[in-house]
Amino acid sequence: MAHDQTAVREILDKAKAEGRTALTAPEGKRICDAYGIATPGEGLATSADEAASLGTEIGFPVVLKIVSPDILHKTEAGGVIVGVDSADAARAAYEKIMASAHAYNASAAIDGVQVQKQLGGGQEVIIGAVTDPTFGKVVAFGLGGILVEVLRDVTFRMAPLSGDDARTMLDDIKAAEVLRGVRGSEPVDREALADTITRVGELVIDFPEISEIDLNPVFADARGAIAADVRILLAEGPVSEPARIPREQILASMNRIFKPRSVAVIGASAETGKIGNSVMRNLINGGYQGHIYPINPKASEILGLPAYPSISEVPGDVDVAVFAIPAKFVPAALEEVGVKGVAGAIMIPSGFAETGNVEGQEEIVEIARRHGVRMLGPNIYGYYYTHENLCATFCTPYDVKGSVALTSQSGGIGMAILGFSRTSKMGVSAIVGVGNKADVDEDDLLTFFEQDDNTKAIAMHLEDLKDGRGFVEVARRVVKEKPIIVLKAGRTAMGARAASSHTGALAGDDKVYDDILRQAGVVRAPGLNDMLEYARTLPMLPAPKGENVVIITAAGGSGVLLSDACADNGLSLMDIPEDLDQAFRAYIPPFGAAGNPIDITGGEPPTTYENTIRLGMTDPRIHSLILGYWHTIVTPPMVFAELAARIVAECREAGHDKPVVASLAGDTEVEAACEYLFDHGIVAYPYTTEKPVAVLGAKYRWARAAGLLGG
Amino acid sequence: MAHDQTAVREILDKAKAEGRTALTAPEGKRICDAYGIATPGEGLATSADEAASLGTEIGFPVVLKIVSPDILHKTEAGGVIVGVDSADAARAAYEKIMASAHAYNASAAIDGVQVQKQLGGGQEVIIGAVTDPTFGKVVAFGLGGILVEVLRDVTFRMAPLSGDDARTMLDDIKAAEVLRGVRGSEPVDREALADTITRVGELVIDFPEISEIDLNPVFADARGAIAADVRILLAEGPVSEPARIPREQILASMNRIFKPRSVAVIGASAETGKIGNSVMRNLINGGYQGHIYPINPKASEILGLPAYPSISEVPGDVDVAVFAIPAKFVPAALEEVGVKGVAGAIMIPSGFAETGNVEGQEEIVEIARRHGVRMLGPNIYGYYYTHENLCATFCTPYDVKGSVALTSQSGGIGMAILGFSRTSKMGVSAIVGVGNKADVDEDDLLTFFEQDDNTKAIAMHLEDLKDGRGFVEVARRVVKEKPIIVLKAGRTAMGARAASSHTGALAGDDKVYDDILRQAGVVRAPGLNDMLEYARTLPMLPAPKGENVVIITAAGGSGVLLSDACADNGLSLMDIPEDLDQAFRAYIPPFGAAGNPIDITGGEPPTTYENTIRLGMTDPRIHSLILGYWHTIVTPPMVFAELAARIVAECREAGHDKPVVASLAGDTEVEAACEYLFDHGIVAYPYTTEKPVAVLGAKYRWARAAGLLGG
Repeated sequence: MAHDQTAVREILDKAKAEGRTALTAPEGKRICDAYGIATPGEGLATSADEAASLGTEIGFPVVLKIVSPDILHKTEAGGVIVGVDSADAARAAYEKIMASAHAYNASAAIDGVQVQKQLGGGQEVIIGAVTDPTFGKVVAFGLGGILVEVLRDVTFRMAPLSGDDARTMLDDIKAAEVLRGVRGSEPVDREALADTITRVGELVIDFPEISEIDLNPVFADARGAIAADVRILLAEGPVSEPARIPREQILASMNRIFKPRSVAVIGASAETGKIGNSVMRNLINGGYQGHIYPINPKASEILGLPAYPSISEVPGDVDVAVFAIPAKFVPAALEEVGVKGVAGAIMIPSGFAETGNVEGQEEIVEIARRHGVRMLGPNIYGYYYTHENLCATFCTPYDVKGSVALTSQSGGIGMAILGFSRTSKMGVSAIVGVGNKADVDEDDLLTFFEQDDNTKAIAMHLEDLKDGRGFVEVARRVVKEKPIIVLKAGRTAMGARAASSHTGALAGDDKVYDDILRQAGVVRAPGLNDMLEYARTLPMLPAPKGENVVIITAAGGSGVLLSDACADNGLSLMDIPEDLDQAFRAYIPPFGAAGNPIDITGGEPPTTYENTIRLGMTDPRIHSLILGYWHTIVTPPMVFAELAARIVAECREAGHDKPVVASLAGDTEVEAACEYLFDHGIVAYPYTTEKPVAVLGAKYRWARAAGLLGG
Repeated sequence: MAHDQTAVREILDKAKAEGRTALTAPEGKRICDAYGIATPGEGLATSADEAASLGTEIGFPVVLKIVSPDILHKTEAGGVIVGVDSADAARAAYEKIMASAHAYNASAAIDGVQVQKQLGGGQEVIIGAVTDPTFGKVVAFGLGGILVEVLRDVTFRMAPLSGDDARTMLDDIKAAEVLRGVRGSEPVDREALADTITRVGELVIDFPEISEIDLNPVFADARGAIAADVRILLAEGPVSEPARIPREQILASMNRIFKPRSVAVIGASAETGKIGNSVMRNLINGGYQGHIYPINPKASEILGLPAYPSISEVPGDVDVAVFAIPAKFVPAALEEVGVKGVAGAIMIPSGFAETGNVEGQEEIVEIARRHGVRMLGPNIYGYYYTHENLCATFCTPYDVKGSVALTSQSGGIGMAILGFSRTSKMGVSAIVGVGNKADVDEDDLLTFFEQDDNTKAIAMHLEDLKDGRGFVEVARRVVKEKPIIVLKAGRTAMGARAASSHTGALAGDDKVYDDILRQAGVVRAPGLNDMLEYARTLPMLPAPKGENVVIITAAGGSGVLLSDACADNGLSLMDIPEDLDQAFRAYIPPFGAAGNPIDITGGEPPTTYENTIRLGMTDPRIHSLILGYWHTIVTPPMVFAELAARIVAECREAGHDKPVVASLAGDTEVEAACEYLFDHGIVAYPYTTEKPVAVLGAKYRWARAAGLLGG
C-alpha cells in the first residue's frame, strides 16, 4: 500500500509549528485519507445523476441534504432524506429534495445537495494506537460503546503488524462472536477491519511523533469499516529509540561469559561467611575447569590458588570478573576490569539503584560501556552454567545438567528456582540473576540461549522489560525452536500513565504485556510454581503433532476433572472415530466407557492399562495422552509406573512419539511412582488432576506459536 | 407484597385447560400486573387533562397517538407525538394531535388519544427464571442485548430470594458498572430492579408449574424498571418435589453410622486380598473399640473374632453393616440387615447403576427405604471416622485425628484424598465415599457434620447434587459456623437440556452451580489439589476479623508476586496509616519500603523479621499477615521458622490472633522450615507465592459468607 507520507508530514509539521499536540478533526481525516483509512465519504451533487454517481462512489446507504444559505431548517424544508440505498433512489431523492426546497422557499439560492455516507448500524468498534513505555507503538482493537469501556474488551499488538496478526485481534476479544454476526445480523467485513488495523500500525511506525490515535467509533458492517471520528495526539518532546547492541557483539560477549576460560573473583576471601569466600568455594567445588584468579590485595593465596592484588596483575586473559566487594569499591575495580579486557562483570554487590543509589549505578554502567564490558546485575546472586560446571554465585553449587535455562529479576525468586531445581532434580543449563538489569537484560540472555546447544527451553521471571520491542523481536525468532516461559510479575498493577485518549485509558500495563507476549509466542506462566513446573517439564515432553488429546483413565472421577482441566487449558479432547472407539472397547469391560475420556474402570489388571496405552501411543490420529491412574491392589502404583514407562519407551523406540502426562490418585505410594515416571520421560503428578494438564497445555501453547500444529 | 394469586391461578388454569404450555403476551402482562411487575402502562385519554393525568400515572416520558378508525397513517396525520415528558407537555400534545387530526381529516371519528409509556433509552436487562434439574426454581439476571447473548453476562440465584440477594445480582454481572451509570448516564433504579427480581422469584415459587419466564427486555432507568416483553412457559407434566427426610431422623441414623457401638461385616473373610478381609483388618488394626461381627456362613471365626452365618444370628444390636459381597447377593443380605434394625448399610460392592444395573440399584434402595436403613454407596471404598478409630474401608487405616471431614463421589478421588492426607499429615475427622449416592448424599452428611463437634470444616468432591435445593438449605446454615469447600467436577459441561427461553439457554449447568454455591456461602475449589489444600489449611487458620491484609517480605520479588496473588484472590492490601508506616519503618533499613508490601529487604537479621512480624500481629488494624521469606545466611530457613512460630504463638497467647500464611523462597532447607511452620499453626509453602495466598483467599471467602467481616 502506497501511503501519502508527504501529506501526513505536512499536517504534522504544521501542527508542530503551531505548537499544537492535538490535531483537528479535518487534519485527522486527511491523515486517514493519506493512509487509506476509510472515513465517511461525502460530496456535493448538483444534478440527480451526480447524486447517483456520488452515492455509488461513497457506498450506499447515503444521506442527502440540501445545501443552501437560505434554508436553515433543512428537515422542516423537506431537505433531508436518509437511508438512500441505490443509485435510482439517490436520483429520486435528489429530485424530491429540490422540489421540496423549491416549495418551501422558491427564492432560495441552492448550492446543491450534499451526499454523505450514512453511518450507524453495523457494529461500533474502536481501533487505536498508543506509545507504550515498554513496547513502543502498540495498536488496540476492541468493540465500541460500553463494551470496551466497562468490560475493557480490547486487545493489543505491537506495531507494525501483519494482516494475519490483525485478523487474530478480531478473534481475541471476548465478544468476537458479535463480529461474526449474531441475531441474524450480517458478519462484518473482517478484511476491511484487519486492513484498517494494519494501516493504523503503519501510520504510527512511519510517524513516531504520533503518540496516540483513536478511531472511535469505527462502524463496521458487511460492506466495510469506516472511522466516524479520528483523534490524533502528538508527542511533546523528541522521540527516542532504545539503543541496541548488534547480535554478533552480544554473542561474542555472552559466549565468553557463559563459557569462560578464566574467572577472576574481585574480593576473593579465605574467610568463611564472606561472599568472596562463598564464590571461590562454589567455583572450586562446582568443578569449574578454567582458571580461577582470586583478587585480593591482602592475600597471596586463597583456597590453594595464587591470589593477585589487582586484576591487572593476572598473567593471562580474563573472561569473567565476579565482584564480591562493597559498592563503594566497585567503580575503581571495574575500571581495572575494563582495562584488562574482561568480557563480563558479574556484579553481585547491592547498594545501587535498588537502595536509591541511582548515580552510583549510572557511574558503573558508564565505566562498563566505555570499556565494552557487559555487566550482569548489580544486586544479584550470580549465575550458573552447569555444562561448564560454572557456579559463579554465593549460593550453593548446583550440578544437575539439563536443558532449561532460568533467569530471575529477583534474588528471592532465584533462590526459589534453586531450591525447586534441587528438590525436583530439574536439569538446568543455566540459572541467571539479572537483578537491577543495569546492562545485561533478558534480550541479551535470549540471544545467547537461542544459539546455545545446551539450552532447549528458557524460563524467565521478570517484573519489567527494559526494551520490550527488542525482547519481542528476539523472542519471536527463538520460539520457533525453543519454548520461552515468562512469569511476568506485577500483573495486577495498572499503568499509572496519564491517558488522554480512549485507547490510552485502556492500555493498562498487564493487558498490553499479556497480549504482546502472546503475540511473540511466549508461554506466560500464571504464577511462580507454574513457571517452575513448566520449566521442569517442557523440555521433557516431545512436541505434539496435532491437537487431538485423549484421556485414558481408570477413575471416572479423575476423567471428569481431567476434562475440566483440558477445557481450562485450551486443549481439544479428540472426537474419537468409530473404528478407534471399537478398538479401545475391545480392551475395556463392557460397562467401561469408550469415547473420550476412555474410562477403563477401576480394578482392572495391568494388561488393560497396557493395551489401552499402547493403542493410544501407536494410533497416529492421537497426538497426546493424558493418563488417569487409580491405586488398586490389582494394579499397584509401581506396577503402573513401570508398565507405562516401558510401553511409552517401546513406542518411542518404534517411532511413535507424543507427549504423555499422568495424574495419579492413590495412597502415598503414588509419589514414588510419579518420581519413577518423571525419571522415565513421563510427566506425572500425585493428588492433582490440574497440574499435568496445565503442563501439557503450556506445551501446546508453545507448539502452536512455533507453527508445529498448522492452522 | 400482596400478590393477586387468584388472577394468576385463573390464567394458568385456562391455559392448561386449553392444552397450552405457552402463555399469550396479554396473559403474561396480566400475570405481571398480578405480581406487581411493571409493564408499559397505557390508557385512552379523551381530554387534555385526562392525557396529563394518565401520563402522570404511567410515568413520563409517554407517547401520545391518535385513536381513530378513519386515520390509518397516524404519523402522516400528525397524530403521534413522542417524548412527552410532563403533564403540561401532555396537555399541549393532546391539543396539537387533535388539531392536526382535524386538519388532516375534518370528518374523522376520533375515539381519543392513547397515552403509552415510552420505552427504550435506559438500560436493557433480562430478568427470568427457569426450573433447574438440580436447584429447582432459579432466577436469572443479566444485561440485555448482545451482552447477555454473546458474553453470557448473567447471574443466577435460587428462588425465592431476598431483596439483599437480588441486589447482589446487580453487582455480580461483569458489566455491573453500566447499571451504576457510565458516560454520564444516570444510574438505574436498583431497588426497582431488585424488586422485579424478587417478584419473579415469588411468582415461580408460588406457581411451580411455571417452568420458565423471560422478562426480556426490561428497560431500567433512574425512574424504574419496566418489562417490555413477557414470555411464560408452563411445565408439561406434574411438578414434583424431591422427598426430604426430617433432620432429626437423618441425625438419628448418621450418629449411629459415624459413632457405632457395633459393626457387622457382611462377607467377612480370612483370606488375604479379599475385600471382606481388608475391611476386617482395617476395623481391627484401626483400633475400633466397638463390637465387630464378621458375617460369613462358612466360618466360625475370622481374625480371632467369632463369625456368624447371618446378621440375624448376631446376639446384640448392630449399628452398621459393611457389605463386602458381590452385587447379586446384596438384596437378600440387605433384607436381613433391615430386619435386624441396622442404621447404616455401607455398600462397598460395585455392579449397580455405574455398570448399567439401574434396576438392581433401585431394588436395594427400595429394600433399604422399607426398613429405614440408610445406605452409603453403592460402589464406594467405605468411610473413616477417626475420632472413633473407625476405618470401615478396604483401603488402609488412617489415624491422624483432626477436624476436617472430606467426602468424595469418586473412588479415585477418595484415594487421592487418602494419599494426600497421609503425606501432608492432614488431620481429618472423616473421609467418606458416597459413590452412586443411591441413598445417603451430601445433604445427609452435611446435616451430620454440622452438629459433629469433631468436625470444624467440610470438603466435598461432587459431580452432581441429587437435591441441590436441599443442599443449599443445609449449607447456608452450616457455613455460619463451619466452612464448606466444594470441588464441583464437570465444570465445563454445558447443560444439555433443550432450552425454549432466553433464560433457559443461558442457564448452562456450571454457571448456575457456581452462582448458587456462592449464594449458599460455599467455598468452591477450582481443582482437586486446591480442595485438598483448603481442607488441610482452613481449619488451621483463625478466622480473620477484617479485610486488612498486610504482606511482610524480605524479597521484593516475592512481594510483587504475593500482591498479584492477593488481587487474584479478592484480598485487599491494607492502606497502611501513617503512624503504622512509621512504626514499620523504624525496624527496616532506610532503603527498605514500608507501604504494603512491607519490604524489609534481603540480608536482614532475625530481629528485623521478629520486630515486623510482632508489630503485624499486635496492631489491631491489621487483620491478616502474609510473610515472604528469603533464604539467606543471616537468617537461615529454620531460624526464620522458629522465630515466626514463636512470635505468632506469643501473640496468640496474648490474645492477638489472626491468620498468618507464608511463602518461603530458598534452597531445599525451606521445605523443612515449611513443615515446622505447618506444625506450629502457620500455613507455609515453598517455591510458590500463589498457594499461601489462595488458601488465605479461601478463608476470607468463608469468613465473608459467615458474616464475620460485616458489609
